[in-house]
Amino acid sequence: MASHFLKALSINHPIIQAPMAGGTTTTELVTAVSEAGGLGMIGAGYLNAESTRQQIQDVKRKTKKSFGINLFVPQSYQIDEEKISKAEEALQSFQGSSKVRVFRSFEQTEKDFHDQITVLIEEKVSVCSFTFGIPSDEIIHTLKQAGIYTIGTATTVAEALAVEASGMDAVVMQGSEAGGHRGNFLAGVEQSMIGLMALIPQTVDQVNIPVIAAGGIMDRRGIQAAKCLGAQAAQLGTALLTCSESGAHMLHKQAILEKRMQDKTTLTSAFSGKAARGIENNFIRDMRKVETELPPFPIQNTLTKSIRSNAAQNHDREAMSLWCGQNPNAAMPITVQNLMHKLVDEA
Amino acid sequence: MASHFLKALSINHPIIQAPMAGGTTTTELVTAVSEAGGLGMIGAGYLNAESTRQQIQDVKRKTKKSFGINLFVPQSYQIDEEKISKAEEALQSFQGSSKVRVFRSFEQTEKDFHDQITVLIEEKVSVCSFTFGIPSDEIIHTLKQAGIYTIGTATTVAEALAVEASGMDAVVMQGSEAGGHRGNFLAGVEQSMIGLMALIPQTVDQVNIPVIAAGGIMDRRGIQAAKCLGAQAAQLGTALLTCSESGAHMLHKQAILEKRMQDKTTLTSAFSGKAARGIENNFIRDMRKVETELPPFPIQNTLTKSIRSNAAQNHDREAMSLWCGQNPNAAMPITVQNLMHKLVDEA
Repeated sequence: MASHFLKALSINHPIIQAPMAGGTTTTELVTAVSEAGGLGMIGAGYLNAESTRQQIQDVKRKTKKSFGINLFVPQSYQIDEEKISKAEEALQSFQGSSKVRVFRSFEQTEKDFHDQITVLIEEKVSVCSFTFGIPSDEIIHTLKQAGIYTIGTATTVAEALAVEASGMDAVVMQGSEAGGHRGNFLAGVEQSMIGLMALIPQTVDQVNIPVIAAGGIMDRRGIQAAKCLGAQAAQLGTALLTCSESGAHMLHKQAILEKRMQDKTTLTSAFSGKAARGIENNFIRDMRKVETELPPFPIQNTLTKSIRSNAAQNHDREAMSLWCGQNPNAAMPITVQNLMHKLVDEA
Repeated sequence: MASHFLKALSINHPIIQAPMAGGTTTTELVTAVSEAGGLGMIGAGYLNAESTRQQIQDVKRKTKKSFGINLFVPQSYQIDEEKISKAEEALQSFQGSSKVRVFRSFEQTEKDFHDQITVLIEEKVSVCSFTFGIPSDEIIHTLKQAGIYTIGTATTVAEALAVEASGMDAVVMQGSEAGGHRGNFLAGVEQSMIGLMALIPQTVDQVNIPVIAAGGIMDRRGIQAAKCLGAQAAQLGTALLTCSESGAHMLHKQAILEKRMQDKTTLTSAFSGKAARGIENNFIRDMRKVETELPPFPIQNTLTKSIRSNAAQNHDREAMSLWCGQNPNAAMPITVQNLMHKLVDEA
């Protein structure tokens, strides 16, 4: 079964690079992972159709190996002026706070998503994974007709069953250990916080499609453990984020690499309006008190955009989103090739 | 190393029965686990010295095999009348609410604990584990002098390092998956919620004493995965709670066995004043709004005692504490011997 799964993805090793959106998954990162025999993934969640096409073509130019792409499934949202004003007030104390007043409507977000789908098909990307929900039957059907391998993301058995029922080919099970955004779409955030040790066995007992384990896996021990639990592959984010080829901000990498022994990641929805795990900083702490009243994703994400980019420019890690899984201790500042070598050689 | 650890505990298999306090760890359960080659554990957290001695002698009468005992390390608390009155008010709507007005002082709790230690030594119990903190240097020294193998419980690397520094022989790492009370004593509850996939590797990289993995492990896959991550053994709670020999209430067992696919465990401190994972019910939901203002452990535990026991008598699972880990789906209503056979045979 495992080898069948690897064959379907045209990869040599059961290692998938997590599609970290927002600039981390550079063409260099994606290419290096695929060249090393894993599956590189373009995190296209925040890209428009044109940038999506651009990066796909860039990657294709640098590697002939299989790679994939990840899209955010748009979830319905409202633009609520009252909530936005309150959030702006709470954000005022942060350097770089600017009154962003251009919000994309849900309809525009949906159109962008459909345009991305068109690009994938035109560019014949071999693998497409989805986060934050399940695309329409029509989209899944179209992708499968085009020979694209589809992967859903789930955080509970119920969500995994929904992914399977949708006809997708495989499912990433995101454990509570995972850094970055929670992929829950049926469960509430708290209900979605299931550790992989408990999540993987009960999922493989109940779904028939291949299961990929994601969350806190940093080295060969985690990959082996995921296999013992019944997963076909492991998806690694934080371990690849600190690699030389990743586009994560230097301060982000440093924060993870310095975090040895500190046990300091936390969940916050203050950056984007959706819960995500990262290293605690002043922004997260200060926003805690208003966290439940903030506008939803992606409105809050738009509101904090200039704060985050100014913080990055000013080298102020206290207002950056420092996404990180629960085992930063094992992160290393090395090349993808060296990391993959360690993961595979010893696996 | 693994076999050295098993030898030190005088057991054949790397399986430790979680010391579930409050009546679950009957003499039959402890004995059956030890007879099957694992380590049976008396959960003596709520017992006084005399009952502790009684059960140790009972177990000794039924098995010559190695077994252990678990004690709660008393953590300082105040008896705050105002908080107690507020809690009583919040509890009033629950059937069986009675104005319990006898609270043991911290000094009494400490004395009970010391009396239990005396009993262990007199009765020559071979293994003693601790939850909720680290006992005094003097106690650890005395136990080690008496040849008793000591095990601490930790939820973060920092806590594991503290256990190691105290001189204890091994450490149980409780992952966020675990049912029942959180064992955090340095970390806050949120910081203590680390999944085993992330927690075990970073712990074994930083401590030198043997690490035991606890939380959501229900079958041979989990035991194997724990070994891959670097643990010497696995501690199983929920899997043993539903066994015939366990003293858990029939409704408690049923609730776990019925919970297939429901993803419905949650953290609550409403039953005892300390965070614990269990199956969500009306009591947990109704108390949610006052949860942060309740008296600390063990005061709140005393306050809810009659509610819980009346609920159990009246077969009302909505006011019982239904502790459960994150993989109830794998629980089975079988004998310990049959369960151990599955865990070992296939491991």
